Amino acid sequence: MNGAQALVQTLVDAGVTTCFANPGTSEMHFVSALDRVPGMRCVLGLAETVVTGCADGYGRMMGTPAATLLHCGPGLTNGLANLHNAKRAYTPVVNIVGDHATYHARYDTPLTSDVATLAAPMSCWVRVSRHARDVSDDAVEAVRQSTTAPGGVATLVLPADTAWTESDGPRPPLPAPTPVRADMARIDDAARSLRGGAPALILLGTSALSEAGLHAAWRVAGATGAALRTTTFVARMPRGRGRPPIDRLPYAVDQALTTLAPFPVVILAGATPPAAFFAYPDKPSDLCTPGTRIISLASVGEDAERALQDLADALQAPQRETPPSPVETSLPTGAFTPQGFGQVLARLMPEHAIVMEDAVTSGRGLFVPTFDAAPHDWLQNTGGAIGGGMPTATGAAIACPTRRVICLQADGAGMYSLQALWTQARERLNVVTIVFSNRAYRILQGELKAVGATPGPASQALFSLDDPPLDWVRLAEGMGVPATRTDTMEGLAQALARGVRADGPFLIELQC
Amino acid sequence: MNGAQALVQTLVDAGVTTCFANPGTSEMHFVSALDRVPGMRCVLGLAETVVTGCADGYGRMMGTPAATLLHCGPGLTNGLANLHNAKRAYTPVVNIVGDHATYHARYDTPLTSDVATLAAPMSCWVRVSRHARDVSDDAVEAVRQSTTAPGGVATLVLPADTAWTESDGPRPPLPAPTPVRADMARIDDAARSLRGGAPALILLGTSALSEAGLHAAWRVAGATGAALRTTTFVARMPRGRGRPPIDRLPYAVDQALTTLAPFPVVILAGATPPAAFFAYPDKPSDLCTPGTRIISLASVGEDAERALQDLADALQAPQRETPPSPVETSLPTGAFTPQGFGQVLARLMPEHAIVMEDAVTSGRGLFVPTFDAAPHDWLQNTGGAIGGGMPTATGAAIACPTRRVICLQADGAGMYSLQALWTQARERLNVVTIVFSNRAYRILQGELKAVGATPGPASQALFSLDDPPLDWVRLAEGMGVPATRTDTMEGLAQALARGVRADGPFLIELQC
Repeated sequence: MNGAQALVQTLVDAGVTTCFANPGTSEMHFVSALDRVPGMRCVLGLAETVVTGCADGYGRMMGTPAATLLHCGPGLTNGLANLHNAKRAYTPVVNIVGDHATYHARYDTPLTSDVATLAAPMSCWVRVSRHARDVSDDAVEAVRQSTTAPGGVATLVLPADTAWTESDGPRPPLPAPTPVRADMARIDDAARSLRGGAPALILLGTSALSEAGLHAAWRVAGATGAALRTTTFVARMPRGRGRPPIDRLPYAVDQALTTLAPFPVVILAGATPPAAFFAYPDKPSDLCTPGTRIISLASVGEDAERALQDLADALQAPQRETPPSPVETSLPTGAFTPQGFGQVLARLMPEHAIVMEDAVTSGRGLFVPTFDAAPHDWLQNTGGAIGGGMPTATGAAIACPTRRVICLQADGAGMYSLQALWTQARERLNVVTIVFSNRAYRILQGELKAVGATPGPASQALFSLDDPPLDWVRLAEGMGVPATRTDTMEGLAQALARGVRADGPFLIELQC
Repeated sequence: MNGAQALVQTLVDAGVTTCFANPGTSEMHFVSALDRVPGMRCVLGLAETVVTGCADGYGRMMGTPAATLLHCGPGLTNGLANLHNAKRAYTPVVNIVGDHATYHARYDTPLTSDVATLAAPMSCWVRVSRHARDVSDDAVEAVRQSTTAPGGVATLVLPADTAWTESDGPRPPLPAPTPVRADMARIDDAARSLRGGAPALILLGTSALSEAGLHAAWRVAGATGAALRTTTFVARMPRGRGRPPIDRLPYAVDQALTTLAPFPVVILAGATPPAAFFAYPDKPSDLCTPGTRIISLASVGEDAERALQDLADALQAPQRETPPSPVETSLPTGAFTPQGFGQVLARLMPEHAIVMEDAVTSGRGLFVPTFDAAPHDWLQNTGGAIGGGMPTATGAAIACPTRRVICLQADGAGMYSLQALWTQARERLNVVTIVFSNRAYRILQGELKAVGATPGPASQALFSLDDPPLDWVRLAEGMGVPATRTDTMEGLAQALARGVRADGPFLIELQC
């Protein structure tokens, strides 16, 4: 059994049964092993940003890693942006990068590069296998590292000769890492502070955003009056009817400052202290008012769900119902507004839908109008690396074949990784993509004003996407995905109703 | 004058007058500076791989660098594959990457990453500007580094506050680096060896591939009987009528070994010793027969054109005519063959065309049938990073607006960077793209056999692109590029004749 076969068997034994791939010559033995070792599903992405984004979406939904298969340094770098997003979502990913044979590297042939160095900034762990005998041990360690809290990208570099040389066979999986429980002293500290009555805001990060974590936070808020917010971008959050209606911390600095200003106490549950996404001249990076008392109930690597439950119990907070669903009103009509869009989405979203939101400016106001949608999971671009939307939605659909996926995709961001549509068509995935077609980098038009500049020819050339206009219907059809176009909310409702019943992917270009 | 304005003025003063960009929030002051400082043309790419590939194509044609403008670590990583190709082409590029403000980095907000580390493997030089006062000095140094032989990617990381803070103004350019002349002892050594009569092959790399360098090599070959080959992939080579008809060293290992076997002497002119692109079990990495005498006439950083001229003079080699053009024959008809394709291309290529070839398996046999085409420049993917074709062609067209660009694009590789078509439409560039639509990663089907594996379901799933088939006509039209489809050589001839007369870009899907 060669190293590649041992690797695939080891991964399958460890529960890594899906491989998102875009291989090259140095990965041929791995591919051949996939044909010899049963149990691994292979999914092709036509660009590596699709491959890694799929792995992110899959890992967020499953809680266990998919493998990737990438080709040398350039193949890795094409996938690093979505690995960055996965890193910021704390998604477990086993990132396998093939490379030249160990003895071939010294020839510095055209594809040679420093793969380990390139991988390091987006990885929680990097190892280069040096011999076929090491590959299986390295693979079980990669799985363990990727699933160690809070989760991350474990990169295993596989020189071609470690794949084709005889190995010692597969290794059994290592025991699953145990969650790290937060220190009770901090839970007592938070409880004392909340009992003391100073206005407090609890900021909920990734490991707090389970259904149990959210309900515990909801109990704490009911018992103490504490305000609740999620981080500005969430990796995955259960939402909709029966789940606590909790809004995000706003992206815009001034709004975030206003949101946080009333609270002399901020309690962090699986989150870091709130900071501006970007720095701006004359605006603070630190979003808390100076003097704010910050209590870290649970760090990002600790079990925030459990800490919130412990906090609720320490406060003897009773169980608490979520608000009843409001009476249905008529659907909005006319041109796009974020509020109207949210209403259409809330009404038409199927039960247990997965929403991947990479809508940038069009997506900022969607949490509140979708509080009373059917129960669903909401995923966002967590790392700010443009192009996460469609690939992440694709991976989520692979992970959850019985659920409908709705991808909310800004047009500018969508162009970074439109190749994901082809994988959706290839795999017959039930993904409805809604492209917010405003034919501009709308966010940058705003950011330019925020820095006090007057738009001119250069900024016009760099922020406008309307010459020529992108035709998303043709682009989707070119990759085998049926599509339609609308510029009204009633048209959207009709198209969305069609899309969520479709057998396979569908795309809606929403002109707004 | 803030740092961004000083930077733009410094770049313009140094002759860097084109900026390929995909900016974000941290680059807003740079964009604003582009509107205040005259002289810089801005070209938007809808994905960073387009931006960097454009800079590669521009630099290859101009010999002087374009600037890029990229957004933080993920924006950089999206562009690294084509920076890798630029590095391997020794293309001068001033690679500017915006990043968080210096004081903001410690908050580790979602887009934070280690930009300098990510840039290093593909750069000849990396500097992080630490203050607005440093930016201009760093910029002139970046230009100098990028143009120091053999040329490379100089990366300048620009924290946002260095752009918006007051600076000391622009700096004048540094003197252009002087070419490094090869040691005369090695030229004498090569001359002695050639005079001695042992069969020799001269391998021509990037700095040898000027018109003067090729003619000097042609003289040497005429006087001594030495064989001539270029490296397997060329950054830019003047070809066609009146230029010496020199073939490439084959990509396939066995063919390369056969090509080199008759020569006990190999003379390197701006090239490294020939090595297999990839390692294979039971095949050598080193392509020269053991015992081959290798003479480095000029290293890749030395002036190989001059060294070849010196060698021809040392050998007292007379001037030598290139072969006369053959009598024109009828154009081929019927299904695609590489030979037939080459004949159509040779006949219909306009004078002074620029051919960017990223045709992978479809492109291997095109050098010989195009020896007698009209004079043209031929560019190739030099680094093996998939997706260089259309972006590099786009940048070449920006550099040379009076010349026609023909991009030969494999379909699998083309899907990595199809967004380049939009930039071609936006900028009304005279680029004809021919997509070789074989709906497969054909190269990998061959490579799998080369490693001795039998194709199975996994390899079928990962190498086939025919379910669904990509519709390149729709994809092109979706980005504003008119397109047509053909599956015959006569259809190709008709479409190509139309394309090279078109006002603006055109795409031909050639089913093969």
